[in-house]
Amino acid sequence: MAQLIHGSDYNPEQWLDRPDIIDGDIRLMKKAGMNSMSIGIFSWSVLEPEEGKYDFSFLDMIMEKFYQNDIKAILATPSGARPRWLAEKYPEVLRTDSLGRKQVFGGRHNHCHSSPIFREKITAINTLLAKRYKDHPSLFMWHISNELSGGCFCPRCRKAFIDYLKKQYNNDLDKLNHDWWTTFWSHTYTNWEQIEPPSPLGDTNLHGLNLAWNRFITHLCADYIKTEVAPLKEITPNIPTTINMMDMFTGLDYEVLKDEVDIISWDNYPHWHSENDYDAAIKADFAHDWFRSLKHKPFFMMESTPSLVNWQGYNRPKRPGMHILSSLAAVAHGSDSVQYFQWRKSRGSSEKFHGAVIDHCGRDDTRVFKEVSELGKILQSISDVAGTQIKSEVAIIYDTQNRWALDDAQALCNKDKQYFAQVLDHYRALRKLGVNIDVIGSCQDFSSYKLICAPMLYMISEQNANRLKDFVKNGGVLVSGYFSAVVNENDLCYLGGCPGGGLGEVFGVWAEEIDTLLPGNTVSVADEQNTYTAADFCEVIHPTTAKTLLKYTQEFYQGTPAACVNSYHNGKAYYIAYRDSGKFYDVLYDNITTELGICREKSVLPYGLLIQKRGGLTFVGNYSENYIDFIIPDGSYDIVSGSQGRLSLQPYGVLAITKKE
Amino acid sequence: MAQLIHGSDYNPEQWLDRPDIIDGDIRLMKKAGMNSMSIGIFSWSVLEPEEGKYDFSFLDMIMEKFYQNDIKAILATPSGARPRWLAEKYPEVLRTDSLGRKQVFGGRHNHCHSSPIFREKITAINTLLAKRYKDHPSLFMWHISNELSGGCFCPRCRKAFIDYLKKQYNNDLDKLNHDWWTTFWSHTYTNWEQIEPPSPLGDTNLHGLNLAWNRFITHLCADYIKTEVAPLKEITPNIPTTINMMDMFTGLDYEVLKDEVDIISWDNYPHWHSENDYDAAIKADFAHDWFRSLKHKPFFMMESTPSLVNWQGYNRPKRPGMHILSSLAAVAHGSDSVQYFQWRKSRGSSEKFHGAVIDHCGRDDTRVFKEVSELGKILQSISDVAGTQIKSEVAIIYDTQNRWALDDAQALCNKDKQYFAQVLDHYRALRKLGVNIDVIGSCQDFSSYKLICAPMLYMISEQNANRLKDFVKNGGVLVSGYFSAVVNENDLCYLGGCPGGGLGEVFGVWAEEIDTLLPGNTVSVADEQNTYTAADFCEVIHPTTAKTLLKYTQEFYQGTPAACVNSYHNGKAYYIAYRDSGKFYDVLYDNITTELGICREKSVLPYGLLIQKRGGLTFVGNYSENYIDFIIPDGSYDIVSGSQGRLSLQPYGVLAITKKE
Amino acid sequence: MAQLIHGSDYNPEQWLDRPDIIDGDIRLMKKAGMNSMSIGIFSWSVLEPEEGKYDFSFLDMIMEKFYQNDIKAILATPSGARPRWLAEKYPEVLRTDSLGRKQVFGGRHNHCHSSPIFREKITAINTLLAKRYKDHPSLFMWHISNELSGGCFCPRCRKAFIDYLKKQYNNDLDKLNHDWWTTFWSHTYTNWEQIEPPSPLGDTNLHGLNLAWNRFITHLCADYIKTEVAPLKEITPNIPTTINMMDMFTGLDYEVLKDEVDIISWDNYPHWHSENDYDAAIKADFAHDWFRSLKHKPFFMMESTPSLVNWQGYNRPKRPGMHILSSLAAVAHGSDSVQYFQWRKSRGSSEKFHGAVIDHCGRDDTRVFKEVSELGKILQSISDVAGTQIKSEVAIIYDTQNRWALDDAQALCNKDKQYFAQVLDHYRALRKLGVNIDVIGSCQDFSSYKLICAPMLYMISEQNANRLKDFVKNGGVLVSGYFSAVVNENDLCYLGGCPGGGLGEVFGVWAEEIDTLLPGNTVSVADEQNTYTAADFCEVIHPTTAKTLLKYTQEFYQGTPAACVNSYHNGKAYYIAYRDSGKFYDVLYDNITTELGICREKSVLPYGLLIQKRGGLTFVGNYSENYIDFIIPDGSYDIVSGSQGRLSLQPYGVLAITKKE
Repeated sequence: MAQLIHGSDYNPEQWLDRPDIIDGDIRLMKKAGMNSMSIGIFSWSVLEPEEGKYDFSFLDMIMEKFYQNDIKAILATPSGARPRWLAEKYPEVLRTDSLGRKQVFGGRHNHCHSSPIFREKITAINTLLAKRYKDHPSLFMWHISNELSGGCFCPRCRKAFIDYLKKQYNNDLDKLNHDWWTTFWSHTYTNWEQIEPPSPLGDTNLHGLNLAWNRFITHLCADYIKTEVAPLKEITPNIPTTINMMDMFTGLDYEVLKDEVDIISWDNYPHWHSENDYDAAIKADFAHDWFRSLKHKPFFMMESTPSLVNWQGYNRPKRPGMHILSSLAAVAHGSDSVQYFQWRKSRGSSEKFHGAVIDHCGRDDTRVFKEVSELGKILQSISDVAGTQIKSEVAIIYDTQNRWALDDAQALCNKDKQYFAQVLDHYRALRKLGVNIDVIGSCQDFSSYKLICAPMLYMISEQNANRLKDFVKNGGVLVSGYFSAVVNENDLCYLGGCPGGGLGEVFGVWAEEIDTLLPGNTVSVADEQNTYTAADFCEVIHPTTAKTLLKYTQEFYQGTPAACVNSYHNGKAYYIAYRDSGKFYDVLYDNITTELGICREKSVLPYGLLIQKRGGLTFVGNYSENYIDFIIPDGSYDIVSGSQGRLSLQPYGVLAITKKE
Repeated sequence: MAQLIHGSDYNPEQWLDRPDIIDGDIRLMKKAGMNSMSIGIFSWSVLEPEEGKYDFSFLDMIMEKFYQNDIKAILATPSGARPRWLAEKYPEVLRTDSLGRKQVFGGRHNHCHSSPIFREKITAINTLLAKRYKDHPSLFMWHISNELSGGCFCPRCRKAFIDYLKKQYNNDLDKLNHDWWTTFWSHTYTNWEQIEPPSPLGDTNLHGLNLAWNRFITHLCADYIKTEVAPLKEITPNIPTTINMMDMFTGLDYEVLKDEVDIISWDNYPHWHSENDYDAAIKADFAHDWFRSLKHKPFFMMESTPSLVNWQGYNRPKRPGMHILSSLAAVAHGSDSVQYFQWRKSRGSSEKFHGAVIDHCGRDDTRVFKEVSELGKILQSISDVAGTQIKSEVAIIYDTQNRWALDDAQALCNKDKQYFAQVLDHYRALRKLGVNIDVIGSCQDFSSYKLICAPMLYMISEQNANRLKDFVKNGGVLVSGYFSAVVNENDLCYLGGCPGGGLGEVFGVWAEEIDTLLPGNTVSVADEQNTYTAADFCEVIHPTTAKTLLKYTQEFYQGTPAACVNSYHNGKAYYIAYRDSGKFYDVLYDNITTELGICREKSVLPYGLLIQKRGGLTFVGNYSENYIDFIIPDGSYDIVSGSQGRLSLQPYGVLAITKKE
Repeated sequence: MAQLIHGSDYNPEQWLDRPDIIDGDIRLMKKAGMNSMSIGIFSWSVLEPEEGKYDFSFLDMIMEKFYQNDIKAILATPSGARPRWLAEKYPEVLRTDSLGRKQVFGGRHNHCHSSPIFREKITAINTLLAKRYKDHPSLFMWHISNELSGGCFCPRCRKAFIDYLKKQYNNDLDKLNHDWWTTFWSHTYTNWEQIEPPSPLGDTNLHGLNLAWNRFITHLCADYIKTEVAPLKEITPNIPTTINMMDMFTGLDYEVLKDEVDIISWDNYPHWHSENDYDAAIKADFAHDWFRSLKHKPFFMMESTPSLVNWQGYNRPKRPGMHILSSLAAVAHGSDSVQYFQWRKSRGSSEKFHGAVIDHCGRDDTRVFKEVSELGKILQSISDVAGTQIKSEVAIIYDTQNRWALDDAQALCNKDKQYFAQVLDHYRALRKLGVNIDVIGSCQDFSSYKLICAPMLYMISEQNANRLKDFVKNGGVLVSGYFSAVVNENDLCYLGGCPGGGLGEVFGVWAEEIDTLLPGNTVSVADEQNTYTAADFCEVIHPTTAKTLLKYTQEFYQGTPAACVNSYHNGKAYYIAYRDSGKFYDVLYDNITTELGICREKSVLPYGLLIQKRGGLTFVGNYSENYIDFIIPDGSYDIVSGSQGRLSLQPYGVLAITKKE
C-alpha cells in the first residue's frame, strides 16, 4: 500500500538514563504523524562499548517500541563515527591528510576507507545487526554509514591508488604519461611507485593526476560501500539499502555510487531566508531532480530541518508555511519521504542547536511541532503519490566529473568559473515554463528526451560526444555553448578546434578565443528585434554551417556571432557563445519547448511560483513574499485546503491539485 | 604618602655600550616627571648569559642610579622571553602547537608552562633576584613575567590535562562523558588516556572538551604563576606582585588568575583615531572597570603608549591632548599609575617603531616628550586620589567563560555573536548617564549592587543562577535578555525551557525560538509611544507572569512581546528579547537609575563626553572633535587648568574637578 | 648585423609522436616572421630518461631543423624542472619549507640550491649539452634554468646560512648580535649553531635575521648560477648566458644576480584590460627600465604572451593592437627581442590554456597568428634599433633590499606601505613629460644623472647616503621624502634624527613623527597658489636650513611644512613629507626638468599617451580607449604606417617615428 514516509533521525542512546524522555518521544512521534525513524547512526560506542563486546539492548528496546507503535526503523550501520577504542587500538583507521598529517580521533565520517581493520570491524557489527533484526517486522531499510565523503592520503591508500591506476592503464605507464601529458614540466613517470596523490607539498596542478585521484576516491568509496552492504544483502536480501548523499556535494561522483545501493536518498538544507527564497527553491528543486535522475526512481529525502540549522553563516528559522511548502516540493520532485535531522535536540556537543521536532524544552505546543504535525496529515492525504515515477521530456546535463575538471582548469577566471550557476540559469528558464526536467550526467542514456541542455560541458569523452551527436541526428534538440567539448575524458585538449570530439559539425561552429569579462562588466548582444546582455564569458566563434541568431554589438568582437543554431540531420543544435543574463534563455526555451510540444504551462510563471507534476498531482508553490493569483482548473481542487477555482496563494503557500473523482 | 606612579618599561640592557645614553635617560626621566621604571622584563640573556653563570652588574648599576634619583623599580622576573641557550639545551621548554608541531626558538611569552626545567630555571633566577635586591630601597614591586598567554599541546601538557580532569571529576569518567555529552557522534571515552586536547587534526567541536581545555590552560597558568611567586614571597614578603594583563584578552580567565597576585595591572592600547574615539574611550573605560572590579581595588595601568603603537592596522599618533585625557581616564577609573611601553625606542627588531617617550633622535623637545612632562605635573597635582576606592551601585556581568562557550557554540550566526558588543551597548547607555559601573564575572558577589545587567549570559551554573535569583528576591533589579541561561557550566542545555537554571520564573517568560537577522536587516519594535529597532537577534518569547513592555511590529512574530518586566518578590527582572540598536537601552536605564536613585548625572551627557568620579574628584573628558559646553558647579574648580564655572571644553580636553577647600 | 629577435618558448618534446606537428611548427614559425626559439627548458626527463643515460636525439633533430630554417636556438639548461627519478633516488634535491616540511616531487623551480647531488647532475648534463652543440651554428644563447626563485629550509641550507653569516661577520658573533639588536626580547645568540632561518614556528619578526636570510637566498642562488654557468663558459666561452627574471619579483635581489650572466632577460606579463591599461603600461615600462638599468645595456624580453595568460584572476585576451603596441614598447625601452611563452599550447597539464602563437586548433588564420606575423614584419623594419643604448638624465631609485626591509618593518600601516606604488607615482609624473628614465638600486653609480628620485628610501647604508650627498654637492638634484634614511643597511635605526646617515643636512630638515591616514582619508596641503592632497602618510617635519614649499592646512600639524627644498653646495634636495595624490609631483617635475634642461616633451602628454626614445626612433603609444591627436614633426615619419604630419592615433595604436633620410 502506497505510503509516504514521515520520519526523522533519532538518537535515543543519548537519553538512556531518561526512560521518561524516550517514552515521551514515542508518544510525540505518533502525535506528529510520523511513521519512521532513522536510528543507530552514531551508536557504535553504545553497541560495541569494548572491542568484541556487543550490547544491543537499547536497539532491542527501541525496535520493540517501534513495533508496538507502528513505526518503521531505518536502521543505520554505525560507521558514521567510530568508537574511541577502535582508533586507540588500531590507528590505521584514522585518515592521513594531503600534507601527510595523521589525524587524531575526532569528528565523524573520517575513516580511512582502505583500512582492512576498519572493514573487518564494520563487517562484524553489520553482520550481527542483520542477523539480529532480519526478522524484525519494524526493519524497513538499511542506512549505510552517514554522508560518506573524503579521501585519505596514507601510504596504504597511495598504494591502492597506484594499483587502481595499473589496472585502469593495463600496466601501460606510457599511456598514463600521455594522458596526463607529463612531458610538460618534465614530470614523466618512469615507474609506478613514483605516483603520489595530489598535495600542496608536491603537485596540485597536474590536472590528469587530480582527475584520476578524484575518480579513485569515488572508486574506493564504492568499494567500501560494497564491503558494508555484503553481509546485509546476504542476510536480509529483501531489505533495501541506501546511503544519504549530500546536496550538490562534489567530493564524490554519485553517478558511480548510485549503483551500490537500492534507493537514493539525500540530505536537503537550503539557505532559506538567508539567500533569496526563490533562488534557494530552484536550487533545491534542481537537487531533487538530480538525485531522482540518478536511478530515475523515487528517492528519499533522508534529512531536512523542521526549523533551522546551526552551521550556516546566519541560521534562520523557516517562516510559517515554508516547512510544508519545501517538504511537499520534495514529494513533487520524486521523494517518497519527508525526513528530518533531527527528532530531538541533543543536550550537548556541536549540534545541540540544530533544529529538531522536539526542542530542549520538550514541549509539543511549539510552532515547529504544530507545523510538523500538520504536514504529517497532508502527507497522509496525498499518499497515493508514493512510488509514482516522473517522466521528463527535457534533460539538463550536470556532470560532477566535468565540474572537477572545469574547476581545476587554470583558465578563464580562476576564482569561480560559475559552472553550477550557469547550469542553473538554463534550469531556471525551463522551470519558469513549468517543465519537468531530469538532471543527468553525460554518461546517461539520452534517447528518451526531446531536448538536452549541456552548458559548459568542458570535458566530454569522444564516446559520449558521439552519443550526443546521435541524439541530434535522431531528431533531438541540443543546447550548449562556450567552453564546451574542450577536453576529452582525460582532460587532454581536443586538437583541431573547439567544440571538439566531433561536436563541431553538430553545432556548425568553431570557437577561436574567449574573453573573460571583469565582474560587473557586460557586453551587449542582439538580434534584429531584441538586445540581450552578456557577462563573465564571451567566446569569439565562426559559424561553418550554423545560422547566426545573435551578434555581439560591443567589444572588439562586435558584429561577430554570439549565438547560432545548426540543423544537423533530423535535429538541431544551438550554440550560445556567451553567458547570458537570463532573458535570452527565457526566449529560447519558450520557443524550443513550443516547437517540440513539450509539456509545460501556457505562459511564463510569475516570479516566485514553481510548478511540478507527479502522479496525477500538480504541486504549486509560492516562494515569494507576495500573494500570487492562481486559477485551479475546472474539475480539479487542492487536496491540502480543498480550494477550487481562482485563489490568491499566500506567501509560502502550496497547492497539491488533483482531479475530482 | 599617596603617590600616583608615572613610569615606563625601560630596557637599558640594550644600551650597555652607551653609558652616555643611559645617563641621559635618567636625567630625562626626572625632567619628564617620572618616578618609576619597569626593568628586567627581557633581561634573562644578560642576567644569565650561560646556564648558571649570572651577571647582575647592569641591574646593580641601574638600581643604584634609580636610588640616587628617587625612581622606584618595578622589577620583572625575566620569563617574558627565555635565553637561546635554555631552549637549545632543554627543548622541553618550547611549546608544541595544536597541530603537534614543536616550536623552534623565537618570539616571547611562549614557554611550556608544564616544563619542570623551565620552572626550575626561573625559580633559580627569581630566588637570586629576590635575595640580591630584597633590601634595596628602590625595589617597589615584582612584575611577574610579561603578558602571560597561550597553551601548549605537548605530551606532558596533555598528561597534565588528563590529571586535571581526573581530579575535577574525582576519577568518574562516566560523569565526564555525561557532561561532554559524548554519546553524540559516538565519542564516548572508555579510558582517561583517550583524552586529547582540541586540535584541527582531531576534535574542534566537542564543546565540553574545548571548555575544559580553556579552563585547564588558565589553571596551568595559575599554577605556573605560583611557582614564580613562591621564592619572591618567601624572601620579600612585603613587596607586592603583579602580572600585566591584556586588554579584553580571552585566552585566560583573569577572574581565576587575579588571586595569584597582589595587584592587578594591565596594558592599555586603544585604537585611538583609527576607530571612533568615543567608542574607543568607552571600550577603554570598560576595560578599566573590568580590571578594577577583579579585586575591587586600585590597579596599575602597566603599559600604554605615549604616542602610537606599531602593530595595529593603521598606527596613528595620539592627537594633542589625547595622551593626557586618556591617561587621566585610567586614574579616574581606579588606576594608581600611568605607565608606558616604552621609555626609549629600541634601535632594532620588531618594536623599534613602537612609540616611546624618547625617540631614536634622543631629543626632549618633541611633542611627545612635552605632553608626557605636562602629564607628570598633573599627576603630582592630583596625587591624593592614589589609593582611593571606587564604589559602584551598578554592575555589568561580563564573563570570560561565558564568552568562551558562546563564541564556541554553533548557533545563531557563526561568524560573531557580538557578545562583547552587546555588553558594551548596555555599558554605554549607563555611561551616558554618568554612572560609575563595576564589570564583574558571574561568580562574583552580587549583594552590594542595586542594578545588575547580564546581557547574553548564555552559560550560567545553577548555583550562580540561584544567586541571581536571590539578588532579585532581595530587591535588586536584573536586566538580561535573549539567549541567556541556555546552558549550565558544562555547556549542557537546560531542559525544560529557556531561560533555564531557575531563571524562567525570575523573568516570567519562556523563549521558544530565535531569529537571526542578516547583516543590515532590522525589525521594528514598539510600545504605545515609541518605536525601536532590532538587529542581529530576535527571540520569540512567551510571558508567563511578566508584563509586556514592547512588541515586535514586523516579521512572522509581529504582535508578540519583544521586552518584558517581571516583578519577583522584592525586585524586578527585565527581559529584552532582541538586540536593540541602543535607543531603548537609553530609555530603560534612564528610568531604572532614576527609580533606584542611583548616583548619576541629571541628564544624558552630550556625545563625546564621559564622566567618572573617584576620590572626591570628578573627571570629565571630551572624546569628540568638537568643543562641548560644561559648567563646573559652584564651589568647585578644575585642578588641571584652574577653571571655574561655565567653560567650553576643547576636543580631547579633560577636567579634574574638585571642591574648593 | 643588427637584428631584433622574434621568438618563443618551444616544447617539441611534447609532440615527438607527431612529426607532422613539428614540421608544421617550423613552417608556421617562418610564416610568422620568427627567428629564434627557446628550447629544452623542461626537457630533462627526455634528455636523461634514466640516471646517466642520455638521449639527445630530439634536440639534434630540432637543432638541425632550426639550422635549415635559419632559426636561432636559445638553448636552456634543463634545471627548470627535475626528472622524477632524480627526486626519487636523491630526496636531498627537494626543498624543505619554512615549517620544516620536506616537499614531495612536483611543480618546478623548486630544487634545493645547496644540494651537491643536484649541482653534480646539472653540471653533468650542462657539460654534455655544451660539448654536443658548441659548434652548432644555431646555438645562439644559453638560457640558464628558468625563472629562478625561492629558498629552502633544510638542515644543509641552514648550515650554509650559518657559514655565510660567519664569513659576513668574520666570525664576530657580538657584531651580529649588535646588528640584529638581539638584546631585545633576550634573543642573544651565544653560539653560531643557534641560528635558524625565519619560521612561523620560531622567529618571523627578528628583522635583522629576515634581511640576512633574504640576502643569503640571493647569495645561494648566485652561487648556484655560477655552478650552472661554469661548464658552459669553459666549453662555449663566446655564447652569452642569461637567466629569465620575473616582473618586479621581490624574492631575489637582481642587482646581485645580474653579475652572474651576460645578458639580462625577463618575463613580462602585465594585466592588460583587467587593470587600467595606462597604469599597466606605466608599470611595464618601469619594469623594462629597471631590467635595462641593471646592466645599462639592451636586454631580452624572454617571455610575453601573444594573447592571454591563464593564471591571473581574470585572463583577458589582448585587444587588437595591444600585442604590437606592448611589444614595441619593450623595444623602445631597450629590449632587443620580443619573445613569447609559448609557441604552441600544450595538450594537457596546467598551462594548456596559456596563450600561444598556435592554439590547439593548429590554425594560422587566427587573430593571434595574424597579429604576431604583422609584428614580425614591423620588427624587421626597425631592426637598426637593435643593440642601441638608452641614455637617461634621470634616475629613480627602486631598491629591492629597501623593499624587503620596509615591507618587513612593523610601522605605519602593516598591510601595505605602498612602496612600489609610491615609486611609480614619481615615475609616472616624469613619464607624462616624455622623459627617459633609468631605474636603479641604491648601490649604483649616481654620477651620470642630473636628477635622482629616491622616494621612501627607508634603508640606506651610510656609504650610499654619502654618495647621494656627494651627488647633490656636485650639483645634482635629489627628490625624496617621508620615511627615508630611517635605518642603515642592517635595519638598525639611525640615532640622532631622520633622515639619517648624514642626509639630514642635505635635505635641511628633521622629521619628528609620522601620521598614517586611514584608507580614503586625505589631508590638504597648499602653497600660496595651489592646494594639493595628501593620503596615506603625513610626516611632521622641522626645516633646519630648508625652505618651505608647502604647508599642511589640516590636522594637528596644520601650518607646519609639508614639502621643503634645500640648497646644498652646488645642488638641491627636495623633501616631500607626505604622499601626494599626484598633482604636486606633476608640478614639481615640470619645474625641475625645465630648470635642469632635461630632454622631454614640451608639454604634458595627454592621458594614455606614452613616449620613449631609443636609437633615433621615437616610439609613441596610445594606451587609452580613445583616439589621440598627434603631430609627427616635419621631416619625420612613422615607420610602421608611413604616416606623416598630423594624425589621430587609434586606441592601442603605436608609432615608431624616425627622420626621413
